[in-house]
Amino acid sequence: MYRIRPRVPMAVVRRLPKYYRYLGDLMERGVGRISSKEFGRLLGFTASQIRQDLNYFGGFGQQGYGYNVEELREQIGKILGLDKKYNIIIVGAGNLGQAIANYTGFQESGFALKAMFDINPRLIGMSIRDVRIRDLDDIEGFMLEERIDIAVICTPKEAAQGVADRLVKAGIRAIWNFAPEDLEVPEDVVVENVHLSESLISLAYLANERETGGIGEEQRAERNNARA
Amino acid sequence: MYRIRPRVPMAVVRRLPKYYRYLGDLMERGVGRISSKEFGRLLGFTASQIRQDLNYFGGFGQQGYGYNVEELREQIGKILGLDKKYNIIIVGAGNLGQAIANYTGFQESGFALKAMFDINPRLIGMSIRDVRIRDLDDIEGFMLEERIDIAVICTPKEAAQGVADRLVKAGIRAIWNFAPEDLEVPEDVVVENVHLSESLISLAYLANERETGGIGEEQRAERNNARA
Repeated sequence: MYRIRPRVPMAVVRRLPKYYRYLGDLMERGVGRISSKEFGRLLGFTASQIRQDLNYFGGFGQQGYGYNVEELREQIGKILGLDKKYNIIIVGAGNLGQAIANYTGFQESGFALKAMFDINPRLIGMSIRDVRIRDLDDIEGFMLEERIDIAVICTPKEAAQGVADRLVKAGIRAIWNFAPEDLEVPEDVVVENVHLSESLISLAYLANERETGGIGEEQRAERNNARA
Repeated sequence: MYRIRPRVPMAVVRRLPKYYRYLGDLMERGVGRISSKEFGRLLGFTASQIRQDLNYFGGFGQQGYGYNVEELREQIGKILGLDKKYNIIIVGAGNLGQAIANYTGFQESGFALKAMFDINPRLIGMSIRDVRIRDLDDIEGFMLEERIDIAVICTPKEAAQGVADRLVKAGIRAIWNFAPEDLEVPEDVVVENVHLSESLISLAYLANERETGGIGEEQRAERNNARA
């Protein structure tokens, strides 16, 4: 069902993980059904936005009965591809790389960490949660033997583009980039950036604005949006 | 100069840290001046967008001479408040909290980590880069004695709202939230969310779309945007 309409707007794609997360919360709280109105209130969206979004995938609600929470969550999970397993590697086994390797939430969502790579001889050979840190020079060989879906780049800024080039050459098609560098990759490679410094700096700016009085309506709207 | 026009659109605010980062790169490469056209090409924006953005703060370029890289960087740094020092605490001293504590880039940008807090007796008393992990129960007392500008929440999902409530009561006005939970806070508190799981899930979705053929024009545009 979920591959019939491939041209889903990015804004909808961006909202689906949030839907998925909230539906998980509802399940944990034992909620069996929810109306688009209630669900919208919870997420800070309108009921019609919720209905519109879910209509892209066929619409799961029954008029007047609301959505079956468990079923809707399962369907959205399928749309997001969470019923599949993803093999991941992390390049850069410093603090951030290790933190991501240690984060068990990803494993539970079907993302399996297969290896970590670094150039630091003091790190190479160590293991994080039974995953070995290997020499970066072995990455091409490793990727010939294992199907890897996603590479996480946690290197310093200076190394990021070089690592991305090697990964792309070795066949990677999806990169989760934590290095403060905007990577250049071919058209058919997807990059999702997490620029932590920029996020922190924006926060400091907004906090400053606040203190000096006068936050604009727009800022307030974005804030509420971000929280919703 | 930079407090005269407080109603800067959020989209511009969001772009400033990127400007700041690229100007730092240019400085490192020894570039002294840059035209809005070249700078735009580097960032993936149009020259007129660059000029328009910077006009919010008085415009720094000289017609025909381009921008002085170092000066522009300093000015944008001031606008962003990077000439100030920010005191930070981290609540939740697990892997992610420790990774953030270990990330030296923040310290260099003027964000000083003052303390970490946790409820885990095995972590309390330990130090990360000379910063002590304290008992969460001491947080109110600590915040009476130290001016804290930003609190980073790295707790599990279930603990996040409770921690946010305590922080707000203790006077915090800016929260950097890594817990997969949308926090409810009063109007005058700023929250910046980093939802890592949602970012990874979106990446997996886009990678899947790619494989099954047919990425839309819109996705391509967003991708290029994200990289720019």
